[in-house]
Amino acid sequence: MPMNIISADQIPDIADIILAKQRINEQIRTTPVLSDPQLNAVLGCELWLKCENLQHTGAFKFRGASNAIAILDEMGRPGDVATHSSGNHGAALALAASTHGRRAWVVMPENSVKTKIEAVRRNGGEVVFCPSNQQAREKGLAKLVAKDCIPVPPYDHAHIICGQGTATIEMTEQIQGLDIVLTPVGGGGLISGSAIAARAMISGVKVIGAEPAGAADTALSLSQGTRVDQFPVDTIADGLRAIVGILNFEIIRDNVTKVITVSEEGIVEAMALIWLHFRMLVEPSSATVVAAILASPEDFTNCRVGAIISGGNVDLEHLPFRVDTTLEKA
Amino acid sequence: MPMNIISADQIPDIADIILAKQRINEQIRTTPVLSDPQLNAVLGCELWLKCENLQHTGAFKFRGASNAIAILDEMGRPGDVATHSSGNHGAALALAASTHGRRAWVVMPENSVKTKIEAVRRNGGEVVFCPSNQQAREKGLAKLVAKDCIPVPPYDHAHIICGQGTATIEMTEQIQGLDIVLTPVGGGGLISGSAIAARAMISGVKVIGAEPAGAADTALSLSQGTRVDQFPVDTIADGLRAIVGILNFEIIRDNVTKVITVSEEGIVEAMALIWLHFRMLVEPSSATVVAAILASPEDFTNCRVGAIISGGNVDLEHLPFRVDTTLEKA
Repeated sequence: MPMNIISADQIPDIADIILAKQRINEQIRTTPVLSDPQLNAVLGCELWLKCENLQHTGAFKFRGASNAIAILDEMGRPGDVATHSSGNHGAALALAASTHGRRAWVVMPENSVKTKIEAVRRNGGEVVFCPSNQQAREKGLAKLVAKDCIPVPPYDHAHIICGQGTATIEMTEQIQGLDIVLTPVGGGGLISGSAIAARAMISGVKVIGAEPAGAADTALSLSQGTRVDQFPVDTIADGLRAIVGILNFEIIRDNVTKVITVSEEGIVEAMALIWLHFRMLVEPSSATVVAAILASPEDFTNCRVGAIISGGNVDLEHLPFRVDTTLEKA
Repeated sequence: MPMNIISADQIPDIADIILAKQRINEQIRTTPVLSDPQLNAVLGCELWLKCENLQHTGAFKFRGASNAIAILDEMGRPGDVATHSSGNHGAALALAASTHGRRAWVVMPENSVKTKIEAVRRNGGEVVFCPSNQQAREKGLAKLVAKDCIPVPPYDHAHIICGQGTATIEMTEQIQGLDIVLTPVGGGGLISGSAIAARAMISGVKVIGAEPAGAADTALSLSQGTRVDQFPVDTIADGLRAIVGILNFEIIRDNVTKVITVSEEGIVEAMALIWLHFRMLVEPSSATVVAAILASPEDFTNCRVGAIISGGNVDLEHLPFRVDTTLEKA
């Protein structure tokens, strides 16, 4: 392995994330940061949204996938890549692979949402269906690896974590003086990369996570001091249903100030507020960051907050909110 | 009137638009420009979207309204402002006025969409209802003017045109080497400001308008060589139902290369394509720019095109498209 590439199971530092940014800078979109005075007045803080919903494939996942694929190129390791995914990582890996002249194989549960299956294919990926359970997914992936596909996991991997951390470096170039960096917490790829980047780039910054109460394995792990590997998941935030990764939990434990849990109602209210004030439809997973401020405003009072909006791949036919008059007056 | 302020019925030049930009720069959002390689491959050109759907109040209209209000301040002319509007100009004027410590009165048809009524109120405006016809709207406005409100019309006014033109100056700072600037055409405020700015800033640029066939008064006026003031309007693009203004038509006639008319089906297809490739919901009015490229690709082949996405105030409960499998494969 070339000297400047971190191995997959190590904890990255800021230099690894800066290298990742140099690697992927040409492929990714510099996503905008947006703020709204009216929403700030409601929330009692100065909130900046880092709009990764406008990233290629509609999610920050394209950053990590692009870094992982670029590293395979640098290592002189040719071949197809593979993962299992029912969500955004599959489409991101497919696009990152095809951009680099590789093929991506994505093991997907046979009951996956049609739009997400098509997103993988549209971005040049090959879909392999499997029964809808964890063992079948892992077995499907193992078969591909046996055929010499290189596995690229969705979050518990240093190259992925470094790629996701680039969004925070970019955000620090766009907004000065952040007091808090705030991200959703699912498998932990985004928040672990963000925490390493934020703490290195911004003196005295707090890093806060937002996690649905219905998928609060990370909050529980933190309170127990040890990572739980089971949790009865029940949340609308489909991007955050994963259990926090091993490497990710270690980074979170050492670098994240706190994880705030949010209710399903809070998530839906936050989605509607973001639509109302920014005219952006964001995933329930993304809305957790605004829900966290609504749930625990005292953690944010008068602070300048940079929150990562993780994705925008919502199902238009099943939006969970209606913009009603009450909300409009908020 | 201070020497550097153009009078309302004159044709602006680039200096007037640059002054407008200086006036409003602190109030407006610098909206992002986004491009997508996959969509470019479909369209056969390099398309950049200037995302005014992410502007305050969800539309470029806030630029013109902010400039008009700031000029009233500069002229030392205090007092409330008034307009009639069933759409984005009303909310934009309300926010621009309240930002400058003024009150805005907006005459709205009593059958206006609830969301738009609330948008005016949320931004600090006062709504005055009237019957749903042009005479009643003008009568309502005349009553307010008789009470010393200052009228601020939506497009046929130099201060508004200059404000709208600032989006194109901003775009030329964000993307170099544009061959074509492309905007929707309704009352003509956006395209007239854009045309003056583009032709001054970019050597050899073409300025192209996109107009629904069901509201093609501008295309008809151009082909006749004289402005029509009646047209049987029937289009989903609610922001483009106005008849082109007098000042606007004069500017368009002298500065716009051509106006391409687009079908209702083309508008809906373009809305869906923009959602698919950018995860942004835009107004039917905005989608006309992509529909124009689909309708007349030979006008854009291999060109670098900067297209202004005019607004994002769609009614989520009545989206005119479904993302189906056929489209996903496009």
